[in-house]
Amino acid sequence: MEFLQEAKKASSIIAQLSTREKNRILLAMAQALVANTQAIEAQNRLDMEAGSANGLSTSMMDRLFLDAKRIEAMAQAIREIATLPDPVGRVLDGWVNEDELKIEKVSVPIGVIGIIYESRPNVTSDTAALCFKSGNACILKGGKEAQHSNTIIADMLQSVLVANALPKAIIALLPDTSREGVAHLVKQDKYVDLIIPRGGEALIRFVNENATVPVIKHDKGVCHIYVDKEVDLAQALPILHNAKVQRPGVCNAMETMLVDSAVAHDVLPPIKAMFDAAGTQLRGCARTRAIIEVGVANDEDFHTEHLANKLNIRIVDGVEGAIEHIATYGSGHSEAILTRDYATANRFIDSVDASACYINASTRFTDGGQFGFGAEVGISTSKLHARGPMGIEGLTTYKFKIYGSGQIRR
Amino acid sequence: MEFLQEAKKASSIIAQLSTREKNRILLAMAQALVANTQAIEAQNRLDMEAGSANGLSTSMMDRLFLDAKRIEAMAQAIREIATLPDPVGRVLDGWVNEDELKIEKVSVPIGVIGIIYESRPNVTSDTAALCFKSGNACILKGGKEAQHSNTIIADMLQSVLVANALPKAIIALLPDTSREGVAHLVKQDKYVDLIIPRGGEALIRFVNENATVPVIKHDKGVCHIYVDKEVDLAQALPILHNAKVQRPGVCNAMETMLVDSAVAHDVLPPIKAMFDAAGTQLRGCARTRAIIEVGVANDEDFHTEHLANKLNIRIVDGVEGAIEHIATYGSGHSEAILTRDYATANRFIDSVDASACYINASTRFTDGGQFGFGAEVGISTSKLHARGPMGIEGLTTYKFKIYGSGQIRR
Repeated sequence: MEFLQEAKKASSIIAQLSTREKNRILLAMAQALVANTQAIEAQNRLDMEAGSANGLSTSMMDRLFLDAKRIEAMAQAIREIATLPDPVGRVLDGWVNEDELKIEKVSVPIGVIGIIYESRPNVTSDTAALCFKSGNACILKGGKEAQHSNTIIADMLQSVLVANALPKAIIALLPDTSREGVAHLVKQDKYVDLIIPRGGEALIRFVNENATVPVIKHDKGVCHIYVDKEVDLAQALPILHNAKVQRPGVCNAMETMLVDSAVAHDVLPPIKAMFDAAGTQLRGCARTRAIIEVGVANDEDFHTEHLANKLNIRIVDGVEGAIEHIATYGSGHSEAILTRDYATANRFIDSVDASACYINASTRFTDGGQFGFGAEVGISTSKLHARGPMGIEGLTTYKFKIYGSGQIRR
Repeated sequence: MEFLQEAKKASSIIAQLSTREKNRILLAMAQALVANTQAIEAQNRLDMEAGSANGLSTSMMDRLFLDAKRIEAMAQAIREIATLPDPVGRVLDGWVNEDELKIEKVSVPIGVIGIIYESRPNVTSDTAALCFKSGNACILKGGKEAQHSNTIIADMLQSVLVANALPKAIIALLPDTSREGVAHLVKQDKYVDLIIPRGGEALIRFVNENATVPVIKHDKGVCHIYVDKEVDLAQALPILHNAKVQRPGVCNAMETMLVDSAVAHDVLPPIKAMFDAAGTQLRGCARTRAIIEVGVANDEDFHTEHLANKLNIRIVDGVEGAIEHIATYGSGHSEAILTRDYATANRFIDSVDASACYINASTRFTDGGQFGFGAEVGISTSKLHARGPMGIEGLTTYKFKIYGSGQIRR
């Protein structure tokens, strides 16, 4: 419990820090990581050895690995966060009420933010820096497999805090990293203001079921692209290719392509040829399989985020069929329509309930960097507070400051 | 489960309704309530008889009671909601990204909102109208004691929906009103997007502990006013009186007055005289009781929302002492400082973590109407999504609409 009280106290100290001070300390943190490259590499080796002994997959091992170049990239990410505008203290709105009270709505930090994430150790420094810049204390819970790396990274950042007479608890690692420790953390609504789980479905479900602290989920993406009968195929092919093939393992990649029955006979063969050349594994509904030779897509496939070069195909009857399919199977992440028809395009983006709705573009753009947010906290699949790509403004709330001159309520 | 699926479907229909249609239907709803005054009164009498038999308090009975005048007031509240600007479809932000995607951030309804409230039956029509205007379906769970009244009010509103070929499920009453029914509702994150509990601490704790759906709490207010050494006593006395005495039973009333030790000897006697004249029951800390004769305020008092003409008094050492007391005992609702000192005033409103922070004004202004919001959903004591007085914008979220011309991600 003591670390929670310390985090709460620390949050009121970091909340009062000036932009200049925060930026100066962030640059010192970047410097501390680079200066301690060898020590970080040594701790990372312990994680790599344990990972190897525990049979982590090659891709997991790659995500875990740190060298001088990756440590410099972590430092550079912190330097970039230092250059962002301070999201705290913005006057979001202001007016005078009927009693001549001057009311200002001003952005303030949220307080204490708990972040639960998996393997990559750079998330530790990224997240700590995002919370710091936005004036929040954070309690970080990284993956067990990156424990040594995360600990030394947090130590380095904390040493900069201490050198600046600030409490270490501004950037804390969760002391008990067991499932019970997490279950305990997410119930501490007296001390913790927000939990952000980033990871697999099981983790997010566990957090959501146990939390009394508000949660912003960074959940799965089951993204669709609907190929309308008025499609411009020459424009559509590169978009479909990009959305599936460029980086199949990310949440904004297309999982299911919906095709208007009115053009399915014409467009499916060239689309199949393109995906075959890209090595994409295709699976389709019965109507699809009557036109092109692909595997069977069942109901479960349509619910699944494959995170692989696999694509479901389903034939639907017009834009209404696409909207209906997405209402059933979509995860509210990113959905696109490819069409030349103005009314159909608007009908689609007005009706589909998702954080990002596209006309004639790849779903791969749903990303804080692509949106121009500078730094990304993540992509929220929650509807409240922050939805879709989430910049550091998402780590602030607001208060009303009311300037009176003796007003009483009549 | 069926009613949840119906609510979800209904939410996508109401979300697409034009402002003109929504306003026309709201006016018809107001008309339907007035036209059925006698039928509503008859059902209300059943609740009143049961309440009387069950020994409800006089104030509970008064809150429950409906007559022609109160039914007209309910209708008038709906008419006023019809005149508010539509919170849906506002372009909150818009820009062109580096790839020339046109990105618009547009307000949209949240979806299905569950609202759990207590005795007063007018909350049924107010809440239904607020959700309807903001394009949301609602599932309402009123107090058991108002069951007949709530049912006929919902019936009247639904009959207008049906007459306009809209699904009844846009405004639904929770079928199972037992605690189990509520526990079930707040776990339906597949169907319900937001839960707003309005009521006592026990209800709010129950909802928060059981919910997997996001919750916006409308919780208690333990509000403070700090009397600084630089106070203008002539201005301060009416503010203190107003904040405690005008309406002691509301959440924005003052519960604890903090007094700077530097002026306690001078200001406590006149303050006591004023509150004695107002029949306020005073209780103080040991330092207070060394100056004026009042009862004992213990630690529990400082945590309590009295909802009565009772006031705790505590002497603190300067603004820092006030900030510290509020950090421990405050509920994040409304806090005020009374001072002529510019730096002290700013230190207070910058440092105190509450939805509304006042300089030289009564805390009683924390209210959607006083803020000029037109209609109030309530006062949020949550920090995320909506904080403090919450207008109908608080019942919306946003989506990004992205207008492309063939962009793929590089």
